[in-house]
Amino acid sequence: KWKGAPEMESKSGWSFKPRGRLNYDAVAVSAPSSTGHDDGFSTEARRVRIGASGDVPGGFGYKLEVNFAENEAEVTDAILTYEDKGLTITAGQHNAFHGLEEMSSSLFTSFIERTAFTDAFNLQRRIGLSAQYQAGDILLQGGAFTHNMNDDADQQGGGDARVVYSPKMGETQLHFGGSFHYTNLDNTDNTVRYRQRPEVHATSTRFVDTGNFEATSETGYGVEAAAIMGPFHVATEGRWQKVSRPGLADPTFFGGYVEAGFFLTKGDHRTYKKGIFDRVKPANPVGKGGMGALQVNVRYDYLDLTDAGIVGGTQNQYDISLIWTPTDHTRLLFGYAHIELDDAVYPTASGSTSYGVDSFGARAQIDF
Amino acid sequence: KWKGAPEMESKSGWSFKPRGRLNYDAVAVSAPSSTGHDDGFSTEARRVRIGASGDVPGGFGYKLEVNFAENEAEVTDAILTYEDKGLTITAGQHNAFHGLEEMSSSLFTSFIERTAFTDAFNLQRRIGLSAQYQAGDILLQGGAFTHNMNDDADQQGGGDARVVYSPKMGETQLHFGGSFHYTNLDNTDNTVRYRQRPEVHATSTRFVDTGNFEATSETGYGVEAAAIMGPFHVATEGRWQKVSRPGLADPTFFGGYVEAGFFLTKGDHRTYKKGIFDRVKPANPVGKGGMGALQVNVRYDYLDLTDAGIVGGTQNQYDISLIWTPTDHTRLLFGYAHIELDDAVYPTASGSTSYGVDSFGARAQIDF
Amino acid sequence: KWKGAPEMESKSGWSFKPRGRLNYDAVAVSAPSSTGHDDGFSTEARRVRIGASGDVPGGFGYKLEVNFAENEAEVTDAILTYEDKGLTITAGQHNAFHGLEEMSSSLFTSFIERTAFTDAFNLQRRIGLSAQYQAGDILLQGGAFTHNMNDDADQQGGGDARVVYSPKMGETQLHFGGSFHYTNLDNTDNTVRYRQRPEVHATSTRFVDTGNFEATSETGYGVEAAAIMGPFHVATEGRWQKVSRPGLADPTFFGGYVEAGFFLTKGDHRTYKKGIFDRVKPANPVGKGGMGALQVNVRYDYLDLTDAGIVGGTQNQYDISLIWTPTDHTRLLFGYAHIELDDAVYPTASGSTSYGVDSFGARAQIDF
Repeated sequence: KWKGAPEMESKSGWSFKPRGRLNYDAVAVSAPSSTGHDDGFSTEARRVRIGASGDVPGGFGYKLEVNFAENEAEVTDAILTYEDKGLTITAGQHNAFHGLEEMSSSLFTSFIERTAFTDAFNLQRRIGLSAQYQAGDILLQGGAFTHNMNDDADQQGGGDARVVYSPKMGETQLHFGGSFHYTNLDNTDNTVRYRQRPEVHATSTRFVDTGNFEATSETGYGVEAAAIMGPFHVATEGRWQKVSRPGLADPTFFGGYVEAGFFLTKGDHRTYKKGIFDRVKPANPVGKGGMGALQVNVRYDYLDLTDAGIVGGTQNQYDISLIWTPTDHTRLLFGYAHIELDDAVYPTASGSTSYGVDSFGARAQIDF
Repeated sequence: KWKGAPEMESKSGWSFKPRGRLNYDAVAVSAPSSTGHDDGFSTEARRVRIGASGDVPGGFGYKLEVNFAENEAEVTDAILTYEDKGLTITAGQHNAFHGLEEMSSSLFTSFIERTAFTDAFNLQRRIGLSAQYQAGDILLQGGAFTHNMNDDADQQGGGDARVVYSPKMGETQLHFGGSFHYTNLDNTDNTVRYRQRPEVHATSTRFVDTGNFEATSETGYGVEAAAIMGPFHVATEGRWQKVSRPGLADPTFFGGYVEAGFFLTKGDHRTYKKGIFDRVKPANPVGKGGMGALQVNVRYDYLDLTDAGIVGGTQNQYDISLIWTPTDHTRLLFGYAHIELDDAVYPTASGSTSYGVDSFGARAQIDF
Repeated sequence: KWKGAPEMESKSGWSFKPRGRLNYDAVAVSAPSSTGHDDGFSTEARRVRIGASGDVPGGFGYKLEVNFAENEAEVTDAILTYEDKGLTITAGQHNAFHGLEEMSSSLFTSFIERTAFTDAFNLQRRIGLSAQYQAGDILLQGGAFTHNMNDDADQQGGGDARVVYSPKMGETQLHFGGSFHYTNLDNTDNTVRYRQRPEVHATSTRFVDTGNFEATSETGYGVEAAAIMGPFHVATEGRWQKVSRPGLADPTFFGGYVEAGFFLTKGDHRTYKKGIFDRVKPANPVGKGGMGALQVNVRYDYLDLTDAGIVGGTQNQYDISLIWTPTDHTRLLFGYAHIELDDAVYPTASGSTSYGVDSFGARAQIDF
């Protein structure tokens, strides 16, 4: 059985499948040159992952993936699972339940990078123990999480929970959800930092950035909604991140987006599975007489990192993307973003911190 | 053919098998708080390994495993082999012949961590060229070894040898062995350091520690004995590590243990192969109507790092573990250790260096 | 289907193959002791690579390999490809078109290390986008390349091109080629450094070394010719590297070699494919009643790193190697090099920088 790579199976319940993905980006960033951050053209291996997943008789399973893109080896997923009917127990480093955009694979998202708040609020995989339960259209997810194993950071403790309701209305797949996040920072060096790149990742410039500040805990709330109607899809999320500070006012930062997309090629559509977006499978792929799937997406993306005396900046970002999916396991993405900044970190020569930044990104993607 | 993962074979003598293992630990350490090292709770990805092994026609073979757990990539095994009847030639990084506990896979040991001397004496894989020969109940092992490739250290030279006699008395598997180790440190920066964690690995505190001291060579001697009688097993080892110092008295450090274990589930037992403990295969695994194997183990573990003017400390450690092995390739371990220290590195508020430390550890394990 | 490891294929155009290689070296370097670099014996894991390659229906493919030998994870190849008849488009990190010796796999070269200029001139894989087109005996290759993803370096931009003409004259395979290289260094820290080890890699001593110097661009020209006539082969290349410096004379460095080899075992010969040397497949391998292939090679290797006021040194190197290839995927190499140096970096006690260095190397190699 082929899923990008061969999935080997035995009758007694074993399975094994190699995994991997390659993302190459070529990007350009244009900012007022007097900011000193008119970064121009750069290229990057965005993701170079190898791994494996499999089942072990008795309901057990594992998934293991390592990323080699950042000039070092970083474990992404490394989990042991136990499944029994609708229940899944997961131990190890995995995505906490941070909402639709963060939990959907980067292989299937609508833009080159996820919405601004996912990076800004440090939503990432963590070592934890979690449970999921699916009953009809209801999905319940919750777990206790510590830290990401690639951080040298001290131990953190916290919890995440998410509820999803995903009814079908005729041919339309609906999705509604809410999530909660808490991290106790008492055991760490007690600082957090929220910041975000101008959409593309190959630059290391962040125009919005709170800088490091003291904190004792993070509390996050997210709401999400989406729909897939034939070739159309829409999705929206909002996320509030409240940070408790010792002896100071507690800021609440906010990020949110609305996106909509449309397939230009007949018969193509986004797919959905277990509370997240899944793989696009072109109706007429290259190599079988077709030209694959062609999709156009637009997004309005908002991030506010200024509150309670912390001035991290605010951005209103307008995205458009064109995605060509020649086959199930290959994609080419092109994206343009215009970002309107207020209270940006880098002032212009005239001292202004309100200005526009543009970015363009192209990505070649393959996975197995 | 499945051995956790598919082992693919051709008629002409090729084979290939992916390999991997995941160990997640949650641990707690309790020490007198005035030592400043009452570390409390922490979690850790103890091992995240991916690799492959295979045969090449003509008697050749290879094994390759990389560990990603410590926030970087560390090669564990990376060997080329040649086999002809009872003889095996091995080139590359592999376990030198440091005795039963060190050479048995961590997948099959009776406690969360190996006996204290194995880490304390820096027993580890090294690049080398070795030969093994099995003739009936006799196993001869020897080789020349340099350094571990993950150490930045300069070149070391040395040799290791081991003899094992493993007769069967009726249904009882017996094991007797002796080993010798030598490392010339003349080419290195000439210092060694022996120290050990309080059983669990997720803490970085070591209550016994010689600190760095000048050395020109290490000479080690080990004796070992074990028996497997149905559901019971016993094992014991002693190891002396003599360190030559330039112009100073040469200390000899010592570590040793006695362990015994018993399976509570009917039909289960430890296994033994080629001079080391092998995989436990539950008689009635989960997924086939059984509940897997349940094993209780106790150990007395001793380590003395004080001699000839070097005061590294002494510890008497009492361990108990409960191991649940649902299937061949999954395990849950729970362990408690009480450690009585003398000449500990961290004094209490009253200046005492003799006190007790307790640790608890839980591990989830899967391998393929 | 087996190619060292199983190559799994589906009827619909999928394929997957694990990849890996292990090289272990034991070397010795002998230099005048008063230079302080009479390095003596050392060992090294030269290459420890794991990866995978495969095809995706529609003409797409990928190849991914990571090297773990240098105490860290370094991506070697990481490419996405698209093939249509004679045309291949490649995106990602791959060998730019730096000539026969650099582009042929290290698994198949005639000496333990490639000719001196390949390392000296920093010929290496880079992230880029390239196209190749094969039409009969003509092969055209060209692409735009930036930097190697394992370098922390800033972005570089540049291009490479190569033309190969490879006619067959009766049973004789001929090969003629030329290549061009350009790198713009304006965006980097503006320095380059050319240097080279005394043939073997396990030492970190370089007797020839320009040191860092300011540069704005590199321009390279290469010519190549080779022939395979039954058990004989000859190959030769020359390469000029011109460096533009700001406000100073522009040096042009040069390297070149002539090598010849001969198989002592009947029926064995080098192979050639798509403009590079390919795998040696012994006519009578070990395990099938034969003793594998035995090959003797000699090489004269020249490198001149002194020009336009930069005195990096000159070396005349004489190599001999003996290669035993027991089976398709295993090799043992033994090599001896005598190197005559002028303007060497490390003077002797008498102040001389003209002296001889000898090196010996042995390698065990397996790949899949």
